[in-house]
Amino acid sequence: MPSFSPALLTDLYELTMAQAYVEEGLSGEAVFSLFVRRLPARRNYLVACGLDDALTFLEAFRFDGPALEYLESLGRFSRRFLDHLQQLRFTGDVHAVPEGTPVFANEPILEIVAPIAEGQLVESFVMNQIHLQTVLASKAARVIEAAQGRPVVDFGLRRMHGADAALKGARAFHIAGVHATSNVAAGQAYGLRVAGTLAHSYIQAHDDEYGAFLAFARRCPDAVLLVDTYDTLGGVRKVIDLAKALGTERRIDAVRLDSGNLVELSFQARRMLDEAGLQRIGIFASSGLDEDAIAQAIDAGAPIDGFGVGAEMGVSTDAPALDMAYKLVSYDNRARIKLSTGKSLLPGQKQIVRVERGDVAAYDVIAQYGEHVEGRPLLRKVMHGGVRMPAGRVALDAARHLKAAEAGRLPARLRGIAPADPPYEVRISTGLAELAERLRQQFSTPATTSA
Amino acid sequence: MPSFSPALLTDLYELTMAQAYVEEGLSGEAVFSLFVRRLPARRNYLVACGLDDALTFLEAFRFDGPALEYLESLGRFSRRFLDHLQQLRFTGDVHAVPEGTPVFANEPILEIVAPIAEGQLVESFVMNQIHLQTVLASKAARVIEAAQGRPVVDFGLRRMHGADAALKGARAFHIAGVHATSNVAAGQAYGLRVAGTLAHSYIQAHDDEYGAFLAFARRCPDAVLLVDTYDTLGGVRKVIDLAKALGTERRIDAVRLDSGNLVELSFQARRMLDEAGLQRIGIFASSGLDEDAIAQAIDAGAPIDGFGVGAEMGVSTDAPALDMAYKLVSYDNRARIKLSTGKSLLPGQKQIVRVERGDVAAYDVIAQYGEHVEGRPLLRKVMHGGVRMPAGRVALDAARHLKAAEAGRLPARLRGIAPADPPYEVRISTGLAELAERLRQQFSTPATTSA
Repeated sequence: MPSFSPALLTDLYELTMAQAYVEEGLSGEAVFSLFVRRLPARRNYLVACGLDDALTFLEAFRFDGPALEYLESLGRFSRRFLDHLQQLRFTGDVHAVPEGTPVFANEPILEIVAPIAEGQLVESFVMNQIHLQTVLASKAARVIEAAQGRPVVDFGLRRMHGADAALKGARAFHIAGVHATSNVAAGQAYGLRVAGTLAHSYIQAHDDEYGAFLAFARRCPDAVLLVDTYDTLGGVRKVIDLAKALGTERRIDAVRLDSGNLVELSFQARRMLDEAGLQRIGIFASSGLDEDAIAQAIDAGAPIDGFGVGAEMGVSTDAPALDMAYKLVSYDNRARIKLSTGKSLLPGQKQIVRVERGDVAAYDVIAQYGEHVEGRPLLRKVMHGGVRMPAGRVALDAARHLKAAEAGRLPARLRGIAPADPPYEVRISTGLAELAERLRQQFSTPATTSA
Repeated sequence: MPSFSPALLTDLYELTMAQAYVEEGLSGEAVFSLFVRRLPARRNYLVACGLDDALTFLEAFRFDGPALEYLESLGRFSRRFLDHLQQLRFTGDVHAVPEGTPVFANEPILEIVAPIAEGQLVESFVMNQIHLQTVLASKAARVIEAAQGRPVVDFGLRRMHGADAALKGARAFHIAGVHATSNVAAGQAYGLRVAGTLAHSYIQAHDDEYGAFLAFARRCPDAVLLVDTYDTLGGVRKVIDLAKALGTERRIDAVRLDSGNLVELSFQARRMLDEAGLQRIGIFASSGLDEDAIAQAIDAGAPIDGFGVGAEMGVSTDAPALDMAYKLVSYDNRARIKLSTGKSLLPGQKQIVRVERGDVAAYDVIAQYGEHVEGRPLLRKVMHGGVRMPAGRVALDAARHLKAAEAGRLPARLRGIAPADPPYEVRISTGLAELAERLRQQFSTPATTSA
């Protein structure tokens, strides 16, 4: 990574506005709400993720010496403001849904209650982190649904967007239910299960494929042998020869198919292995897989025991970005609105209430904070006065369990990979609807104060 | 960032294979070639980018104490191998095209010549870095072409995939020709020009829009005022009132349109500003922009002076991942091949030669390394024995200039955003074609050595 100050992971305008707030004496309490305006076409729900990293950033938020020197060098900021930044810490409260919670359009994933300049300065990177992990956990949730219990291994490192994405993505995938990651640094950082097989280069470096399989299987317990370097079924034949030669000396766990028609090849490989009495050798598949390819393979009855999924999940190819916003909804105890075409806003601090019938979610209600609405509230206070609360410190496996449990309570139509029809219902509470309408009328009347 | 060892940004199988190489005594020289198998539908060329970070990674490559402890804890690696890793440094050579060079399918962006275990261990992260920046520079090149000289500002930080992507993306955008970034940390890290305007929250925090404009313009020289919080043309009217009230006290640089029909609104805003004698106030547009929207606006003659581009460029929405590969093409002085369906390989170390007619590129030839082919060779040696050479140390602005010059020499049909018809021609040299055919025949004959 190049040398930079973490607090400068912010858009320049956050600093320009913060300077204006400070100089104008606008130091009132603001509420900023982070939400997704609309779900991508191929997402029935999103999996909220990334809170832990957002809170870590807020806890450590400060402008270090190099940051202040750099800002001074820009010639845009006053001494008074730079002195203010030097002292600045994040002192606000954060309310958020737990990581792993399914959320829908317009539902706040997180709300920050803080002096306005603080809430403004942290916007860009809090969004960056929640966005990244929510994008990736939401995509992985679909892959997990499609795999119907068969293990999915994250192979994304090489094509994910940088080191930060590869690490935090592996974390998000774990929360979504992915079995293991090939990313060793993510294993080290988060204690995730790591897994891997064998690359073509290893086969190619040996003079013949059989020799390569033999050398690898002798050294690697539970080897997964990659069979498609020259000819897939020829490769399978060599694995069978090898398994017979090795006998009980070494266990070969599986063959890996990595090109061609994976469904057809899996049937052929399974039959060959079974005929050789090698039922114990499994079939692992990879090669540009996404949830659609996995669902098709399973629908076709393909005897594939596990899936390696790379770039499609790693960058969430079909929806690599969400229409996520971080908006001022209250300042100085007055709810605020904005009316921009196609980008209007629900005003005020909020709560999400999930209404369940038996064990199944029926609909959500977005309500005003403190408004009484029947159901299960989703937003919890996770930080108070800049200090993380117990609800903001959740073990990674607890988040994984929460995701499984919460997704398990969604209506079945939302859990398939086809678009849910009808989509999940999200209502606006009476109190919130009335507030929004009142503000809309107030601000859509052409103001005359400017004349 | 969580705590991790940089050398562990590798796939587990790289380590498993490296252990096997070490134990088998396979320490011969390997050539690994990094290339993109096919261009995305909406890319007429790619802009190679990320080499500097790949070389920095290689220079610093070592397994630190925590890495070795973690690997030991996995129970998969022998003491002998862990001791080997402790001593391991990257000692290889790297040949690469300069950052900013337009490249095409199957052309090596980079080739590593190194003892096989070294070349294997660095695969995942070298790919990660070159992939990230090539994806983003290639997308930005389209946005720059579409903007036809009007400045483009990177607004991507909040929706790019993590901190690493946001920083290195800003760098890649600069090489591609982007004017400035809103990402202050990228400004600090790379000396890039930073720019920014104003967010809706600032307007909303004030009791009225005019008051917000006044307060901001007084404090911020060359303010770009965001006019769409409540009603875009109402906002423009207030900017006109303000400009008249301020007179020559403060200069307002532009209004910013951020929602609705940007083309129509730009015509209306321009007319209003012109009628008020405010020709000096420009129009800046943002809101989900990509190269298509920019091209449409310019085709329609929209009087927009600059564009803020966020997520669409920041994650390269239409092609967030490339079909990039890093493959063994030679081991122990023998060229290697692989025949996997749809993923076959050009064997051996290579050179790319660009053949120009006058000032325009006519076609490329992928040749064997050392083969004589007329034209301009693109791959240069940038690292020798693990040490960076002068050609591997290129200033960021030099890469930007190189990109502009090299893209300027491409045929005009490649520089539009529509698919080039015909696409650029990439030939295979006679020597390389003969070698590939010879190896194909050798390895597609069902091997009998395994029986």
